[in-house]
Amino acid sequence: MIRAEIIAVGSELLTPFRADTNSLYLTRSLEEHGIRVVAKTIIGDDLNQIAHVISIASERSDVIVMTGGLGPTIDDLTREALAKFLSVPLQLDKTILQKIEQRFAERNIKMPEANRKQAMIPKGATALENENGTAPGIFIETDGKQIFLLPGPPFEMEAMWQKHALPHLRTGEHFERQVFKIALMGESKVDEMLRPLTSTLKQAEYTILAGPGEVEIHLLAPQDAKEELLEACNSLRAILGNRVYAEELATMEEVVARLLRGFNKTVSVAESCTGGFLAHRLTQIPGSSNYFERGVVTYSNASKNQLLQVPYELIEQHGAVSAPVAITMAEQIRSLSHSDFGIGITGIAGPDGGSEQKPVGLVFVALADLTVTRVEKYHFPPGRERIKFMSSQAALNLLRLRLTE
Amino acid sequence: MIRAEIIAVGSELLTPFRADTNSLYLTRSLEEHGIRVVAKTIIGDDLNQIAHVISIASERSDVIVMTGGLGPTIDDLTREALAKFLSVPLQLDKTILQKIEQRFAERNIKMPEANRKQAMIPKGATALENENGTAPGIFIETDGKQIFLLPGPPFEMEAMWQKHALPHLRTGEHFERQVFKIALMGESKVDEMLRPLTSTLKQAEYTILAGPGEVEIHLLAPQDAKEELLEACNSLRAILGNRVYAEELATMEEVVARLLRGFNKTVSVAESCTGGFLAHRLTQIPGSSNYFERGVVTYSNASKNQLLQVPYELIEQHGAVSAPVAITMAEQIRSLSHSDFGIGITGIAGPDGGSEQKPVGLVFVALADLTVTRVEKYHFPPGRERIKFMSSQAALNLLRLRLTE
Repeated sequence: MIRAEIIAVGSELLTPFRADTNSLYLTRSLEEHGIRVVAKTIIGDDLNQIAHVISIASERSDVIVMTGGLGPTIDDLTREALAKFLSVPLQLDKTILQKIEQRFAERNIKMPEANRKQAMIPKGATALENENGTAPGIFIETDGKQIFLLPGPPFEMEAMWQKHALPHLRTGEHFERQVFKIALMGESKVDEMLRPLTSTLKQAEYTILAGPGEVEIHLLAPQDAKEELLEACNSLRAILGNRVYAEELATMEEVVARLLRGFNKTVSVAESCTGGFLAHRLTQIPGSSNYFERGVVTYSNASKNQLLQVPYELIEQHGAVSAPVAITMAEQIRSLSHSDFGIGITGIAGPDGGSEQKPVGLVFVALADLTVTRVEKYHFPPGRERIKFMSSQAALNLLRLRLTE
Repeated sequence: MIRAEIIAVGSELLTPFRADTNSLYLTRSLEEHGIRVVAKTIIGDDLNQIAHVISIASERSDVIVMTGGLGPTIDDLTREALAKFLSVPLQLDKTILQKIEQRFAERNIKMPEANRKQAMIPKGATALENENGTAPGIFIETDGKQIFLLPGPPFEMEAMWQKHALPHLRTGEHFERQVFKIALMGESKVDEMLRPLTSTLKQAEYTILAGPGEVEIHLLAPQDAKEELLEACNSLRAILGNRVYAEELATMEEVVARLLRGFNKTVSVAESCTGGFLAHRLTQIPGSSNYFERGVVTYSNASKNQLLQVPYELIEQHGAVSAPVAITMAEQIRSLSHSDFGIGITGIAGPDGGSEQKPVGLVFVALADLTVTRVEKYHFPPGRERIKFMSSQAALNLLRLRLTE
């Protein structure tokens, strides 16, 4: 197994306000090339510390990818640290210098003297072209270890990695990954259902990741265990059935949007406790005007009556948070908008407004179409944002299941 | 200066799908206690690797905070790795064992044998109570170094840190941080305006962080430069004026919600291109039913006409994306809902639907109240999600400025 590690350089990544995210992109790409990331380090702009971290990484791993600290300021020290670790001098690369000068010339600016140091490359290393900025990258192979230095801005880093770094990268045994996404089930429940499958895996690996309102399952196998992976996927499909809403890293709204467009259907929504979040999710997808006709956020009883003609008597009799009101909201928004589907959501997002009979987290989700209206009653755990998300997730899932019947 | 580092343990944090975020919370808390984070490491579930990482950290830093790997499975190895690093045995802590057993008993479950290992504590260490889960934390002071082991789930980790770990933490020289948030201005523009201030700072530090649709400024100073910090804050206020929408880490919707509640005013919204996102932001705040009356997402022309009585002739004459339509939307939603304020947004979120005359990113935002209707025309850079965010940000800012007049 080829082992890699990622080092992110920059004191801003050691504040409470910025996390390193470049490493997620790099990990994905390294995995695709059969290389496993075994450690990540984040270090500040300190020459000795950076050099020390490189030396630790070179003892653990075969490939080291560093991001950040290649700018023109005195705080940018990654290239100096690499030279220090290698015990070699920095040398001016004239081709790179010309390219940097040219970049400035194109914008009619004289290159500041500070940028000259970006053309300094440790002796024996190769410069990697930066098509989106002034900082070139650096690649060197030493003692069988490959070291890559990339700029920090994701836009520059990703383009350089794809075009100029990957051709140098040693690649390992390819492995395959299959993703499954499941909505509205807890991690432990899914884990338990899959135990007959996961307990028999040999070479294939199983990972379950819990996100808000959904669970992601990853099955991973090296090339020579491809058969086992295929069998495992089939057996997972048999166990979970239509609980699986996607076999890729798609969101629920993407899946629903694809179904609506595929069947040429439209939807309109009437929301109370989700406060527009369902409409927002449905309109996150480019081209959503093809399937989304309208939405109303009827927070007050007056708005439920005026915009949806929900009778005040119905609200008085059952309460605004009730199955009959959710059903009426779904049916009314559908007929008023002439859409194929109407969704109604009413519930209590909290933290206030709950009672013993109708606690925070109680949500009714209704879906109406030409032939049937379905309503589901949920009791979600507290947390305003989570309740909004879970309620919209339940509504989208209801629509998905109806569209795939 | 007291130096700290954070070690996150868990192979899932080395996949392309999960980033460590616990460290941001911990960094903030450590900073508040005058301690600077100098490095972060993320390592997989490997006994020797974890022990090695602890030993490296103990050479660099005074305080080590580790998260994750305290569960009951064979993959959970942080406590074993600490014992290995310390060269001490693990010992059963009977009080902790009782607490774990009790947790299960409360749910009428017999404690699985696997959980017994969670009561094993390295000799000489102190167990830290976990009020939200089975995994206790661990604290030890050795050779003048403080080491904390905390569980991985944020909910368990944060509560344990606050209540049971902080009392042990050595604290350094306090420093003060003042935050300013500015909406709808670019990073470089703000940076340029502030140059007369930032170029004269002595002990105080200045950081500018760009987020979507807003910029955050941090001024930081040690206790003995408090005067300088106060002066810098005043001079920043003089330069930026009401462009500063918050002097804390509040969101724009929190600030607007506070103003609406303070003045006892209500708002309703009519959205087109933002697709419910503005309503969602306004209803993210607990108690939003006090100030949010209703919202409509009028995607189609028919819905603009039926829900808002926008005349078809007006749409034909000016186009749905136009100042007159935005104004009518704002005024109509205000009068139909009997709210104090009405907001209308119409624009082109893209990627399709743009033209030379009306390109993607063109957005009209209108705010109506009893005495005046204001409309603003924006041309945001492309990116559907960004355009939705920026448009809602512009609308909220318009309302904020009106409320603070």
